[in-house]
Amino acid sequence: MLLRLSEEGGPKGRQIVNQVQGLIGQGSLRSGERLPSTRDLAGALGLHRSTVAAAYQELWALGWLELRPGAQPRVRLRESMAHPEPPVAGFPWAQRLRALGRELPAPAPRPEGLLSFADFGMDPRLMPMEAFDRSLRAVLRRLGPRALDYGDPQGQAGLRTLLAERLGRHGVRATPGEVLITLGAQQALDLALRGLTRPGDAVLVESPTYNQFLRLLELQGLRAVPAPEDLDGLEAVIERERPVLFYLMPSFQNPTGRSLDQAQRERLLALCGKHRLPILEDGFTEEMKYFGRPILPLKSMDRTGLVIYVGTFSKVLFPGIRLGWLAAPEACTAALTAIRRAGELCPPPLLQEALEDFLRKGHFEVHLARLHRRFRRRMEAAVAGLRRELDPSLARWEAPHGGYLLWLRLEGFGPEVDLEAGLARHGVAVRDGRAFYPGGEGPRCLRLSISNLDEAEIGIGLARLGRGLRALREPAR
Amino acid sequence: MLLRLSEEGGPKGRQIVNQVQGLIGQGSLRSGERLPSTRDLAGALGLHRSTVAAAYQELWALGWLELRPGAQPRVRLRESMAHPEPPVAGFPWAQRLRALGRELPAPAPRPEGLLSFADFGMDPRLMPMEAFDRSLRAVLRRLGPRALDYGDPQGQAGLRTLLAERLGRHGVRATPGEVLITLGAQQALDLALRGLTRPGDAVLVESPTYNQFLRLLELQGLRAVPAPEDLDGLEAVIERERPVLFYLMPSFQNPTGRSLDQAQRERLLALCGKHRLPILEDGFTEEMKYFGRPILPLKSMDRTGLVIYVGTFSKVLFPGIRLGWLAAPEACTAALTAIRRAGELCPPPLLQEALEDFLRKGHFEVHLARLHRRFRRRMEAAVAGLRRELDPSLARWEAPHGGYLLWLRLEGFGPEVDLEAGLARHGVAVRDGRAFYPGGEGPRCLRLSISNLDEAEIGIGLARLGRGLRALREPAR
Repeated sequence: MLLRLSEEGGPKGRQIVNQVQGLIGQGSLRSGERLPSTRDLAGALGLHRSTVAAAYQELWALGWLELRPGAQPRVRLRESMAHPEPPVAGFPWAQRLRALGRELPAPAPRPEGLLSFADFGMDPRLMPMEAFDRSLRAVLRRLGPRALDYGDPQGQAGLRTLLAERLGRHGVRATPGEVLITLGAQQALDLALRGLTRPGDAVLVESPTYNQFLRLLELQGLRAVPAPEDLDGLEAVIERERPVLFYLMPSFQNPTGRSLDQAQRERLLALCGKHRLPILEDGFTEEMKYFGRPILPLKSMDRTGLVIYVGTFSKVLFPGIRLGWLAAPEACTAALTAIRRAGELCPPPLLQEALEDFLRKGHFEVHLARLHRRFRRRMEAAVAGLRRELDPSLARWEAPHGGYLLWLRLEGFGPEVDLEAGLARHGVAVRDGRAFYPGGEGPRCLRLSISNLDEAEIGIGLARLGRGLRALREPAR
Repeated sequence: MLLRLSEEGGPKGRQIVNQVQGLIGQGSLRSGERLPSTRDLAGALGLHRSTVAAAYQELWALGWLELRPGAQPRVRLRESMAHPEPPVAGFPWAQRLRALGRELPAPAPRPEGLLSFADFGMDPRLMPMEAFDRSLRAVLRRLGPRALDYGDPQGQAGLRTLLAERLGRHGVRATPGEVLITLGAQQALDLALRGLTRPGDAVLVESPTYNQFLRLLELQGLRAVPAPEDLDGLEAVIERERPVLFYLMPSFQNPTGRSLDQAQRERLLALCGKHRLPILEDGFTEEMKYFGRPILPLKSMDRTGLVIYVGTFSKVLFPGIRLGWLAAPEACTAALTAIRRAGELCPPPLLQEALEDFLRKGHFEVHLARLHRRFRRRMEAAVAGLRRELDPSLARWEAPHGGYLLWLRLEGFGPEVDLEAGLARHGVAVRDGRAFYPGGEGPRCLRLSISNLDEAEIGIGLARLGRGLRALREPAR
């Protein structure tokens, strides 16, 4: 048996374990073959005998060796293990999945090295890493193994209490028992659909709307019914299509960045109340109101428990902790909690506990105030840049009151123009607006996100965008 | 405006923000009311003016105050916010959820202070906390904000690569592209059902089987079809019921602790191959083989890509990192990844990266070897205790080759005996076996888990169990 131990390869016992596994895996050591005794191998490698004994013990525990007192170690007999051949192409998975309609398209890879108005996350330069790192450590110290054990299927109670309190600042009354902590807003949407719909049901959506919500509808076999903007038309659609849920983002909507005003909110709520149509209110960037007077969520005006409110920390803190929530009347929250419990038992407690610690220490308010200052400046830069670079005959747009998104309605672009690829050639990434329309059909629009760009980058990016759009509309003669 | 700042209450600016919010929330400060200037408030509280200015700025950013240069600060007008009344009981959620069949029962609360053979997790005393803490810190240092940003929807590539390698040790060939990292084994099961079934489909299960899998079937409107133990009977059931999936746990089955032998595995695989019936193989405690010769997973013998293999770290490391995985042919893994992406975007990267670091440094093998040593002793203590405390006329059982579970078939207990409550009165918690039978009907059995008990606790617990069972079978005359 030929082992080569090195000084840089880490602990010697570990090297023995890995190399013996490797030799068995390659077939160089075969089932039943004898290994040197611990004494002989220790002598040959210049190691202490206990090191080799511990390594053999581990190989035994992992099922690779047979060890018997007084007998020489041997490679265990494992009939099917030695030299497995690669499986033959067999079960027709692709065919079956296609038949079930379970083949969602994979997202197209993005070209590298562009200034990206397509990415919609948190700017890593603005993430408060040190404070969160301290919270993680504080929680591990305080809770010990409990931080890494199973937790509450509804989400940790302490964090739910804080979230209920925070909702109060937006005029929403909620108890900790009405809050369900989810893996970002996305899982809240998924759970709401799993709990409250059946395949074939109609779900009312804004048009355009959040593209990943359209995916969820498709996945669950639900019909996306676009809501007309005028209320009379909306009532007619509700009466005709009998939707079971109305999904909307009243503030800084994705993709348009627009917000419903107070009067629109009240009228929508009254109409849904009249038709007993529950509302799934996605407040994914509720906290990012940084211009003008705040408008409160629909849920703050909801007198009959019609609204399921969804929030998240993904767009204002760390996307990767995957922490969002929903708040709904208790019977609804309990049912959705039972689904989450069946589907994954519980969310990871450590990240929730660390977030609670981070919130309790006041870091989030400080961070949010900083984020508001930054994005007021960034959004002002974007608005100034659009005024400078885009002629109204090329694109129309409205300045939003917060959030990260701008929506351009293009003029004079036919359906054949590949906006994403064409603009990538000019050095900017954008999202084609069509992805956000139910059915994929709509006017030619672009969604711009400024979430990952600073003022200077926004300026350069919009100059490229202007040049690119002009070139795409007037192809070289 | 009455603010009371204290020395112990944390930063003064923070106290101002919190207290002003509180006063507005209570209605002591009303919409439009004027606040003292920064100069006056700073004077009254004995603070530096910049502290008050920063607090006002934050209150403005949060939408509570109006600040205009030269004007006195005021409480913002928020029509619907002041004194919202509690919502009236309105939308009939409970009724709607009942109609949809989406009211899964909540688990009964467990009595406290019992020696628990009911809990099935990881013994916190055996969790390698320090090494994992070091891995978390190493990852945060190395990756910075990337550790808290969005990650790969399929799971981080580095961890998938390691998992594919580890599967090789169990004779399973898998590429990193065939591996999907999930939130514990539970989510792997959920995703497999979401991807591969339609409501009304039949799913073949062992009887008894994992109770939380039965819940998932119920949730998704699927039929649980119990598989007979003899192969002729099984083939007849397959032909009659046309199941779309066969769910089984070949090693240390939950709840029985039993393992299928090599010959049974080969026959099952051949039968499913003949009928093109995909297998969902749950290897949730595969690593916990600590007595006798290892038996390889079905997937290691699968020549036609029929098997979806599921594994997890929940029962051998930390339940709360919620990390499991599945390995399946690439077309299948890709479809299930798309579903996960639609449902929650991605799992939290930080915990995956920390686990990869932990695995690469060899901590897991060392931990697993220690776990095996401990559980050999614990299982021996359990087997000795059962021999000592339970007469064969009271209960029959088999000693398992690994894992944490023992299954007692009771003799002479009618369906009316409440085993869980009765034994709780004798100081032990157990799981009534009926929870594990499709339909909830089955012979009187108990599932005992020794995962959270040491040898001494096992001895005491089994003595109580013996006394309790004898008392329950022969009620006081």
